[in-house]
Amino acid sequence: MAPREEVFKGKKVLVTGGLGFIGSNLAARLVALGAEVFLVDSLIPEYGGNLFNITGIEQKVRVNISDVRDEHSMRYLIQGQNYLFNLAGQTSHIDSMQDPYTDLEINSKAQLYILESCRKYNPKIKIIFASTRQIYGRPEYLPVDEKHPLRPVDVNGINKMAGECYALLYHQVYGIRACALRLTNTYGPHMRVKDARQTFLGVWIRLLVENKPFEVWDGDQLRDFTYVDDAVEALLMVAQSGKADGQIFNLGGDSVISLKDLADLLIKVNGGGRRLIRSFPPDRKRIDIGDYYADFSRIRSLLGWEPKIRLREGLLKTLTFYRKNLKHYL
Amino acid sequence: MAPREEVFKGKKVLVTGGLGFIGSNLAARLVALGAEVFLVDSLIPEYGGNLFNITGIEQKVRVNISDVRDEHSMRYLIQGQNYLFNLAGQTSHIDSMQDPYTDLEINSKAQLYILESCRKYNPKIKIIFASTRQIYGRPEYLPVDEKHPLRPVDVNGINKMAGECYALLYHQVYGIRACALRLTNTYGPHMRVKDARQTFLGVWIRLLVENKPFEVWDGDQLRDFTYVDDAVEALLMVAQSGKADGQIFNLGGDSVISLKDLADLLIKVNGGGRRLIRSFPPDRKRIDIGDYYADFSRIRSLLGWEPKIRLREGLLKTLTFYRKNLKHYL
Repeated sequence: MAPREEVFKGKKVLVTGGLGFIGSNLAARLVALGAEVFLVDSLIPEYGGNLFNITGIEQKVRVNISDVRDEHSMRYLIQGQNYLFNLAGQTSHIDSMQDPYTDLEINSKAQLYILESCRKYNPKIKIIFASTRQIYGRPEYLPVDEKHPLRPVDVNGINKMAGECYALLYHQVYGIRACALRLTNTYGPHMRVKDARQTFLGVWIRLLVENKPFEVWDGDQLRDFTYVDDAVEALLMVAQSGKADGQIFNLGGDSVISLKDLADLLIKVNGGGRRLIRSFPPDRKRIDIGDYYADFSRIRSLLGWEPKIRLREGLLKTLTFYRKNLKHYL
Repeated sequence: MAPREEVFKGKKVLVTGGLGFIGSNLAARLVALGAEVFLVDSLIPEYGGNLFNITGIEQKVRVNISDVRDEHSMRYLIQGQNYLFNLAGQTSHIDSMQDPYTDLEINSKAQLYILESCRKYNPKIKIIFASTRQIYGRPEYLPVDEKHPLRPVDVNGINKMAGECYALLYHQVYGIRACALRLTNTYGPHMRVKDARQTFLGVWIRLLVENKPFEVWDGDQLRDFTYVDDAVEALLMVAQSGKADGQIFNLGGDSVISLKDLADLLIKVNGGGRRLIRSFPPDRKRIDIGDYYADFSRIRSLLGWEPKIRLREGLLKTLTFYRKNLKHYL
């Protein structure tokens, strides 16, 4: 691969969901690499966008508040860009069941707006689509590789599946340089901690920092976790690689852990805290996917990616960040 | 299974796309079985709806002109119904590429409207969703069974896949009695013959009846064909069977035939005619699925369905119908 600085220096990069968790971490890296970074975010309070996330780089990026459902704004913003990191999305499983239309508008329909705009006004752009392990549904086997059947168990999974399919279709049919990363649980500084909408780990950390007990539902489920710096590294790798065009890659974690053990590890790293084991609320139970962890050998063998930050280290960095900055995330 | 008359007699049945090809054939059967039949259709000129299709039963069914995208109309119409045959759809692959938004609104979003209405206002209804072999994309193996991966090659396939997934999800999560039939090429009286939007076979038949040559693109592709009476039989079978709830079934044909051989058979049955072999237009070629034929052993073993009308016989019935009625379909 070409040296990263050469690839991104002076390049125009659009990041949807750019004030969100992964988007803002990516933005900081891109700024450091010398890219011209343009962040789009809707700042919908229930989602992950937060202006505090760009503290320190606010003078080095441009910010445009608009929604990916705003077809006209997207059409304009996409023009002239070299890269599109398409990270905006509705990510709450439970919200997608309560309001399936909004989830469809953001995760499916807006993706068509974006792809149609690229096809018509910027066919040379490279698109990196943030997909999710949610589209696999309940695993039939573990670890889950990219050939695993797609059987989403909630509306969010169905709409994200459609969004990913559109991106790959536009590659197949029109030659648009699109690829997709299927993210597993991503965690780290800038994640939403106000509630469990984005990830349960966020609200655990918030409650720990507030010296309150947090709830673990069931707790035997196995999961894997990617620290946000590793996810950002994968995004940059697929962006700069022509081999990734038209491809799908799982991300994964450095280890597999039950939620109960994760809770205990978090308490240990924090130097104290208390967790309560609860049974699943019924509305969550029926859309739960059970055990999940990814086989990420495809991106490892093709591009050399693997998670570098150990779970313990990542949790410590995250706790440290929120001990200092929690007030900006409530 | 219970005798069919006992199942449907006096039952309230809603058919979306009820003035269309399959919907109107189904309506005639349901009327004969003593059901109270309510047909919903948008009569969009480019789609399959045609008032001539209910000639002879027009006094025995109720007709409501509205679109499945009309959330309020669907919410009202669904109430009090025992069965919903959900056949309305945008079916043109090429139209879905030229106008992906309309395809999404009809094949995905409207399906959510319908399911949300059922969940809230008629949770005991039985829903039969007309899905399509298109969602498999280019077959990885033949014949294609229901476990084949879903890799749609056009926007229509992606949106139909989402629509099918929603229906099964609402069964899984909310217990709505929904099932899906993945139809292959269905043909017979009432099909659209004005152009190739619904099926190429329609326009072939029109041109034959008009004594004009018709075009076969490529011609080596293998396909299977279901005569519409057999498709209607399958719809009624899954409707009356509790075993079908939450299930997906392929339909298929009595034989597998190349398009070239089909053209020759059609000419033979017609007693004359001429076909021209052409190469694929590029915009069609890139979304073509190649060879396809279905393994329908699942519905055969579970419900005893199999195609009864031989291809030659079905083509003859169809030609006879359009020789008499072509003017109503132009």
